[in-house]
Amino acid sequence: MRVVPALPGEFTPPARLLLGPGPSDVHPRVLRAMSVPLVGHLDPAFVTMMEEVKALLRFVFATGNDLTFPISGTGSAGMEACLVNLVEPGDEVVVGVNGVFGTRMADVIERTGACPVRVEAPWGRVIRPEQIEAALRNCRHPKLVALVHAETSTGAWQPLADAARLAHDHGALFLADCVTSLGGVPVEIDAWGIDAAYSGTQKCLSCPPGLAPATFGPRAFEVAKSRRTRVQSWYFDVGLLARYWGEERVYHHTAPISMNYALREALRLVAEEGLEARFARHRRNHTALAAGLVALGLELAAEEGHRLPMLNAVAVPDGVDEARVRTRLLGEHGIEIGGGLGPMKGRVWRIGLMGESSRGTHVLAVLAALEQALRAEGRRVVPGEALAAAQAVYAAV
Amino acid sequence: MRVVPALPGEFTPPARLLLGPGPSDVHPRVLRAMSVPLVGHLDPAFVTMMEEVKALLRFVFATGNDLTFPISGTGSAGMEACLVNLVEPGDEVVVGVNGVFGTRMADVIERTGACPVRVEAPWGRVIRPEQIEAALRNCRHPKLVALVHAETSTGAWQPLADAARLAHDHGALFLADCVTSLGGVPVEIDAWGIDAAYSGTQKCLSCPPGLAPATFGPRAFEVAKSRRTRVQSWYFDVGLLARYWGEERVYHHTAPISMNYALREALRLVAEEGLEARFARHRRNHTALAAGLVALGLELAAEEGHRLPMLNAVAVPDGVDEARVRTRLLGEHGIEIGGGLGPMKGRVWRIGLMGESSRGTHVLAVLAALEQALRAEGRRVVPGEALAAAQAVYAAV
Repeated sequence: MRVVPALPGEFTPPARLLLGPGPSDVHPRVLRAMSVPLVGHLDPAFVTMMEEVKALLRFVFATGNDLTFPISGTGSAGMEACLVNLVEPGDEVVVGVNGVFGTRMADVIERTGACPVRVEAPWGRVIRPEQIEAALRNCRHPKLVALVHAETSTGAWQPLADAARLAHDHGALFLADCVTSLGGVPVEIDAWGIDAAYSGTQKCLSCPPGLAPATFGPRAFEVAKSRRTRVQSWYFDVGLLARYWGEERVYHHTAPISMNYALREALRLVAEEGLEARFARHRRNHTALAAGLVALGLELAAEEGHRLPMLNAVAVPDGVDEARVRTRLLGEHGIEIGGGLGPMKGRVWRIGLMGESSRGTHVLAVLAALEQALRAEGRRVVPGEALAAAQAVYAAV
Repeated sequence: MRVVPALPGEFTPPARLLLGPGPSDVHPRVLRAMSVPLVGHLDPAFVTMMEEVKALLRFVFATGNDLTFPISGTGSAGMEACLVNLVEPGDEVVVGVNGVFGTRMADVIERTGACPVRVEAPWGRVIRPEQIEAALRNCRHPKLVALVHAETSTGAWQPLADAARLAHDHGALFLADCVTSLGGVPVEIDAWGIDAAYSGTQKCLSCPPGLAPATFGPRAFEVAKSRRTRVQSWYFDVGLLARYWGEERVYHHTAPISMNYALREALRLVAEEGLEARFARHRRNHTALAAGLVALGLELAAEEGHRLPMLNAVAVPDGVDEARVRTRLLGEHGIEIGGGLGPMKGRVWRIGLMGESSRGTHVLAVLAALEQALRAEGRRVVPGEALAAAQAVYAAV
């Protein structure tokens, strides 16, 4: 009994400005790269392309690590790939938990049979080096310290260098979640002593979701190779992946060809802009947005001094319906912003200014739309004040 | 020390005819679908699209299973997703091993801590129901029977219905690997009593690699929900995935938006052609190819009566350099065919006629190229005989 479904027509998505927690807007050149015919995953032309992608990823990660390549899944697959290779049952893993993604890391660590040692901070605040140090001192043989560089659920910007140093002082590896930070703020794998890191394509790299760029330093790869137990995941086994992405080119799984085309083009755009210019653009648009939000009487939820430029968690004022404002922005303006997750559900909006989405025009558009929506919610807002505040930032540059 | 890489130019792949084990050629409509701007993974427009993809997948899988959706990884991710959810440490799993992908299943089963009970057949032959029954009788509480429907490494076409019935008679679930079969030969999830199955997008669905369509029947989902232990993978935890792909729409990971656009369009093309017409096309082109291969003095490696139409493993004649022939086809004609894997390395070519790649013109092209290459290898081949044999098949239809 084969039920033939009512055949839907061609998919024509509504026009959107993607100012949520990702995906971000994708450059037309990246979209076009995906519309190019496929070659095989062992084709010499694809093998050349793999090397180019690896070189470009080393550039954005600021690393010389050979083993720098995209995992064939989204950012969370990158998280799982790093953790299942680096830890084994019984290992002590110090993990920072101050948002959804630190919580998720602890969950993944538990599922490997390792023991997460949670170092907590209130959501929106960052983890202090003293906390990491205290946790390490309480461990017998800490295997790994894992922190989220850019906590997408709160907008908190976690410093990493001190924590990496502490991890090494205690004989542990250091793993960083760079899903939202890579391409938007400096990520210095080698300079900060990060042994392994993963990211996602759909944030500040402005490539569609589907790949998780990852990097493994020599110490991390050595740990992965000298495990007592097999890696619990075949799909994410870095020893096997390294044979395909390394010189041997041994078939493991069929690489997502078109997504790799897209990533290559997105990374070319990053390199053409230059990292410093790109970081400055992200900072500038964040400053303008923040000025406009203040003028609207709104507050950023993340700790002052540790606010990410690409992810702005905004506290929802009392008496304002969080979801209704988002629905209005999407319905009336085609602007997507995100809601809160976990304990922040209903309490914050998350405005993303990532990669291609980080543009002055977008900042003005979302401020104008928010001003209108807040007025509809009964808030008293001085017309034009938010736009003027943002424009003043741009004028001052 | 940030090394700016020499910036590569725009990627322009060489023209290829993809007649290997996948990826297959992708229809221009599918390529175009990926070049469309993105919407968010919780956008109402995307949620509607998810439902359409699920309905189209139920159609090709011939199932009424609610839980039918694409896993965010390639076919091997689908394999791992099914196995890690359905089996637990200590479970007995009867698994057919007669090629690379059955071997891979056994490997994944071991990594879950379950006990694979291997039922073997020589590569190229299929597993007999009596073998399954004997293995089940030797188990105390068999949890699952797992077979590969279309063994991409050998071209063997495994019957499934009897094995599924035997599994149920012994209180076990039945899992099928339909990576290469789906969309090319009948796959009857409900009629054959298959409890769970997975596929890949890059074979007979002719969509780029990157997603693994999967389906879980009520019994399988019940087993996954009533486990004693947690699913070892967070990324593949079907309980969490079902909350995003089901009615709740709870964020799990960011769905690969563009790949889902592509899959939807590829499935629309399948539905427009009709499954019976598509299966007949695959059979016809296989018959023509086989006739041409015989005329070239070549033999198919898979067991007679169990030869897949979309994957033709061809024995390499003595004195012929397997790799040199493939290199010649790729270099001189832009035709990709596959080599052998594992014990078949160097001993077979694998000619795929999958989805968009299954065309009469392609059959003639690969036969002409092979004829030329074999002559260059010193084989005596009657000019034009292979093409005539293939053309006779088309003329007789």
